[in-house]
Amino acid sequence: MERIRVAIVGYGNLGRGVEKAIKKSPDMELIAVFSRRPAAALNIKDEKVAVYNIADAEKYVDEIDVAILCGGSATDLPVQGPQFVRLFNTVDSFDTHARIPEYYETMERAGRESGHLAAISIGWDPGLFSLNRLLLEAVLPAGSTYTFWGRGVSQGHSDAIRRIAGVKNAVQYTIPVAEAIERVRKGENPQLSTREKHIRECYVVVEEGADQERITREIKEMPAYFADYDTEVIFISEEELERNHSAMPHGGFVIRSGETGEGHKQLVEFSLQLENNPEFTGSVLLAYARAVYRLNKEGERGAKTVFDIPLAYIYPGLPAALREKLL
Amino acid sequence: MERIRVAIVGYGNLGRGVEKAIKKSPDMELIAVFSRRPAAALNIKDEKVAVYNIADAEKYVDEIDVAILCGGSATDLPVQGPQFVRLFNTVDSFDTHARIPEYYETMERAGRESGHLAAISIGWDPGLFSLNRLLLEAVLPAGSTYTFWGRGVSQGHSDAIRRIAGVKNAVQYTIPVAEAIERVRKGENPQLSTREKHIRECYVVVEEGADQERITREIKEMPAYFADYDTEVIFISEEELERNHSAMPHGGFVIRSGETGEGHKQLVEFSLQLENNPEFTGSVLLAYARAVYRLNKEGERGAKTVFDIPLAYIYPGLPAALREKLL
Repeated sequence: MERIRVAIVGYGNLGRGVEKAIKKSPDMELIAVFSRRPAAALNIKDEKVAVYNIADAEKYVDEIDVAILCGGSATDLPVQGPQFVRLFNTVDSFDTHARIPEYYETMERAGRESGHLAAISIGWDPGLFSLNRLLLEAVLPAGSTYTFWGRGVSQGHSDAIRRIAGVKNAVQYTIPVAEAIERVRKGENPQLSTREKHIRECYVVVEEGADQERITREIKEMPAYFADYDTEVIFISEEELERNHSAMPHGGFVIRSGETGEGHKQLVEFSLQLENNPEFTGSVLLAYARAVYRLNKEGERGAKTVFDIPLAYIYPGLPAALREKLL
Repeated sequence: MERIRVAIVGYGNLGRGVEKAIKKSPDMELIAVFSRRPAAALNIKDEKVAVYNIADAEKYVDEIDVAILCGGSATDLPVQGPQFVRLFNTVDSFDTHARIPEYYETMERAGRESGHLAAISIGWDPGLFSLNRLLLEAVLPAGSTYTFWGRGVSQGHSDAIRRIAGVKNAVQYTIPVAEAIERVRKGENPQLSTREKHIRECYVVVEEGADQERITREIKEMPAYFADYDTEVIFISEEELERNHSAMPHGGFVIRSGETGEGHKQLVEFSLQLENNPEFTGSVLLAYARAVYRLNKEGERGAKTVFDIPLAYIYPGLPAALREKLL
């Protein structure tokens, strides 16, 4: 079997998640990791995997079929996306929602010019959740869509707490409100405020002598991040944080509560329960790397999202086998 | 707005479900119902909807963009599918699993010859469930997929009971076994026998003086339909059947229980709870009629399944709006 030659760009949690996913996909081969750090700092166990500097990417255009961009949306992807799609097919998990249209246009233009294809905003949200939102709104045009996230760690919210003076470390869990989910599942179609949908639970390690009352107040009053939520702050030791809160679980639900005919309720739900978020997200990115490789071989270029890619392309089997086995 | 001109072929429960879905889709217009029965027998309330004989279909090729085939898979679709795709774009819910590859080939060939596009095996299973099976197996290659159906009415099993001597009427519910679902949701990846996954509950009306013991035995011992299941038979009056068992609820679950990295459990579930099965299925068929219309306009012909159709095509909005709103 000819294998798809993959590169990982950025070797953080997500990059390592993609690396693990490749080991479970016999049609994929990890060729290289691109990083800003030196090879020695990355600790990659497989000797066949090269470590290259991101700045040297253009030297390796003949070695790699798809580059999976595992950097962050704030500063990495807006630079690395266009840079890499000029050289390779790419997949990324760009998730700054307000800037997706602009990022799409940039990637679409760069991909068309270079002849490569980019799958953007891949993962579970945006990604699999988006796909279900579209599917279910198309099928049930009369109704309401609800997205709940959690129980899981939000890196953005954890980081926001860490920036407060006197905070040494923090892990923030986003928790969907059980009563809200129950009302939605019953088909009540409730109007839910931000506060009614999610709770925020914060495990915080402080520096010695820090004012816990002030820190609690600063967290709970932080606009956008916490002010609109019921937020609980729990102070713990560094050891306890390490022991009980270093896993990266996550999950969530997309629920479409619709109506057909004269008031027949129809409820559809897509849900995730993930023990390890970056490994799952990495697995989604890898499946779409397969699609990007195949579509580009057929002449597709520019940018695509989960809405534009037929699912047959993400699966290793051939269409006839799919119809026989999975339809 | 230019509307997509739809015809319904076969005016049973599913056909009426499609008719109701069209009323909730402003970009769709019901032009005609094709039937073998005379117009007076159909009782269609909208005077703008024509009733045509199936045999005259070719007279109406200029009036209709997509024909939604609502007949059964056993005898209707194998004849009507190829007949209609020679004249129109089509959508159908062909669900005789073993014959899908053959049906696909027939529709693919006929559509290529006539220049039309057929979406085959659309609905929720096959259809949305198939789509989720593929998606989740592609994303989590290491794992097990479980499909549970119900609680809902199985027409095939109800019909099988009705064919027993002495039975006047019957409704059969397929019920997933709660314990089995729980084990799957816990990530146990159990091997489940047919009996461990579903229960069959039969509400039966008998003719006066019929031997209930014999009927119970004949049901419970019926191969393929009931013998491999725990089956309960409950005798009730015609009135009670009419009052309590004439709704058409259904539902089900696709669960993928997979693993990433070194044993991290990842669980994904897609579930339906439908108060009215034919109305929901009709809504799915209609969404894919939109895709078929658009894809054919772009030059696509032959046959496609849910695996081959990018989801953007089933949604009424434009791609840029989708990215902004649903991604």
